[in-house]
Amino acid sequence: MRVIGLLTDFGLNDNFVGVMKGVIYRINPQAKIVDLCHEIESHNIHDAAFLLKSSYPYFPEGTVFLIVVDPGVGSERKSVIVETEKYIFVAPDNGVLSFLAERDIKRIIQITNEEYFLKPVSRTFHGRDIFAPVAAHLSRGEKIEKFGTAIKKIKKLKFSEPQIKNNRLMGEVMYVDHFGNLITNINQDAFLRFIEGNKFQIVIGKAKISKISSSYQEEKKGLPTAIFGSFDNLEISLYGDDASQRLNLNKGSKIYIEKRTT
Amino acid sequence: MRVIGLLTDFGLNDNFVGVMKGVIYRINPQAKIVDLCHEIESHNIHDAAFLLKSSYPYFPEGTVFLIVVDPGVGSERKSVIVETEKYIFVAPDNGVLSFLAERDIKRIIQITNEEYFLKPVSRTFHGRDIFAPVAAHLSRGEKIEKFGTAIKKIKKLKFSEPQIKNNRLMGEVMYVDHFGNLITNINQDAFLRFIEGNKFQIVIGKAKISKISSSYQEEKKGLPTAIFGSFDNLEISLYGDDASQRLNLNKGSKIYIEKRTT
Amino acid sequence: MRVIGLLTDFGLNDNFVGVMKGVIYRINPQAKIVDLCHEIESHNIHDAAFLLKSSYPYFPEGTVFLIVVDPGVGSERKSVIVETEKYIFVAPDNGVLSFLAERDIKRIIQITNEEYFLKPVSRTFHGRDIFAPVAAHLSRGEKIEKFGTAIKKIKKLKFSEPQIKNNRLMGEVMYVDHFGNLITNINQDAFLRFIEGNKFQIVIGKAKISKISSSYQEEKKGLPTAIFGSFDNLEISLYGDDASQRLNLNKGSKIYIEKRTT
Repeated sequence: MRVIGLLTDFGLNDNFVGVMKGVIYRINPQAKIVDLCHEIESHNIHDAAFLLKSSYPYFPEGTVFLIVVDPGVGSERKSVIVETEKYIFVAPDNGVLSFLAERDIKRIIQITNEEYFLKPVSRTFHGRDIFAPVAAHLSRGEKIEKFGTAIKKIKKLKFSEPQIKNNRLMGEVMYVDHFGNLITNINQDAFLRFIEGNKFQIVIGKAKISKISSSYQEEKKGLPTAIFGSFDNLEISLYGDDASQRLNLNKGSKIYIEKRTT
Repeated sequence: MRVIGLLTDFGLNDNFVGVMKGVIYRINPQAKIVDLCHEIESHNIHDAAFLLKSSYPYFPEGTVFLIVVDPGVGSERKSVIVETEKYIFVAPDNGVLSFLAERDIKRIIQITNEEYFLKPVSRTFHGRDIFAPVAAHLSRGEKIEKFGTAIKKIKKLKFSEPQIKNNRLMGEVMYVDHFGNLITNINQDAFLRFIEGNKFQIVIGKAKISKISSSYQEEKKGLPTAIFGSFDNLEISLYGDDASQRLNLNKGSKIYIEKRTT
Repeated sequence: MRVIGLLTDFGLNDNFVGVMKGVIYRINPQAKIVDLCHEIESHNIHDAAFLLKSSYPYFPEGTVFLIVVDPGVGSERKSVIVETEKYIFVAPDNGVLSFLAERDIKRIIQITNEEYFLKPVSRTFHGRDIFAPVAAHLSRGEKIEKFGTAIKKIKKLKFSEPQIKNNRLMGEVMYVDHFGNLITNINQDAFLRFIEGNKFQIVIGKAKISKISSSYQEEKKGLPTAIFGSFDNLEISLYGDDASQRLNLNKGSKIYIEKRTT
């Protein structure tokens, strides 16, 4: 028994996810399939990489992650298996695995062995015909080297990093969750290192915030709150309301931290 | 093996639900996780309580229900385990368990034993760090008293009850389902007791209905139908159409039953 | 252990699907439940039949499919079990099984044996009270003949078929997927038989396409692409965009194939 974690941009309106599960159970009836998320914005590799990063460490050792956010399906992009100390990742080589730390990666295999594919392989649904069967065989304990040939690198995307400029730490909103919370790319370490124990002001859109809260509802309803949330990054939220809508901010919106020495 | 039923307002656009499942399987690989619903309106404790009420009796004995509709996450609200004759419920103590009958409750434990928590406990995602691990350990058969100290009461919400006023039974719409059916708070008992075998008229918005149908499509398309539906409450529907949209009615809309003696 | 594949139009906003799963696990704790799709447009039997057709062959032998797209719930429509060489289907007899090939069907049973029902049987939720328990018992290996009496036929819907008219092969869009791809009713065989090796032109809305691509992104962004996709039918898509929205085409839109002999 092994867990297979699914991350796709297929949505749940069609049968794509269900069919992949059928394929998996045909190969490994003992698999435990977990839906990590299927509502990634169509073809948004950045979001997929970000959600994967903040999810996989919570899964059991040995989990096989199956990521199908694949705008290049049918083109020459590679398909890969990446093995880390604790997990196995199966994905198109398009950057969705960008957040795996170099030092954790034990092996990268380019998937080439068609023996494991569902045939005929369609031009448009490698999730069903390549990725699902490969993940299912891996979850049965098939050796990773049997699926293809070792390669040295996977594709890495650039993610915007917080920068210090004119004495301000500048970051941006990376992700907006279901509640409208704005998750920035500033993590707790970077924040603390920058403010060095000083008072500070956070500026985002028209909002100014001068403290870090310890829960969403610490502030009065309707007042913007800064908090280090479950993604370990600085989040801006409005208790009882949707911060993204109310403040008219979204992915890419800039956020500034200023030290106040008075 | 034990079923864990999940009820949250996390939606399926993020990785929140998937991560909770990862946490559960890490603790109990044998768990069977069932998604009861994740699309509860954000922070709507009433809806969660209502859906839970009309769901849990259909589950196997021993099911652990894990309810995370938790606007007060990170505040001083308690977290509880409630044991009934047949089930175990794990939830914030905010009223989501309002519909459990007093007489069915065997024990209430306030969750305090941090041994069972995922650390560090985040300020914003107790579903992942407290509720999921507690539910997973319970599903493995861990004794309920190990998680904290017994308390006497859980928080109860007030739900609006049907009333008799000016010879009319007045209720309201409690819930609108995916098909647009309007589920009221008038159950079959209350209805029958009120009409006492008389003819009657149901008035809701501009619609008047003078019979109870035995299926949605008993009336002509487009005509409003009254039926005792799967929630056991009086439902107003339009066969082949969305009653909520068409009749411009929603949660909170009033409904009146009048006896007709002629 | 047996897989139960669920296909409904219940959506995921309510507890309907979760409750059906509770009912199933109460009867067969060993079942593996797979969500095939729950976002079928309300009461759209055609879509359900189409998605089922393109899904079931990917599932393990012995899978029990439970289809609840059931506008006639509570009326006189029959409930049936259809056994094929490899699978079992449980559904209202309203046409959702139209695509099962005559020659594959071994037996049809009209479900009449109330012993297997959940009582009291509601008027509005046979998914919970009839179909889920029947599927669960079947997944435990209960003999199909125990559920009712053999009948000869199931209801078949008419699906529009491609036609040749004025030297053109005319078809239509049958389904629009989550990415906005337009899936037509012209399959690869019909297409190849019609063009007989000639050059051709595909006309749909304002778009004209004169080649079959081998991947979505073979064409420049924004140019319409014709491809034989995972449904094995001719699909029209826009790489990196939503063809349905952009071309203003939808289910029912006509598509024409013309031979070009020059």
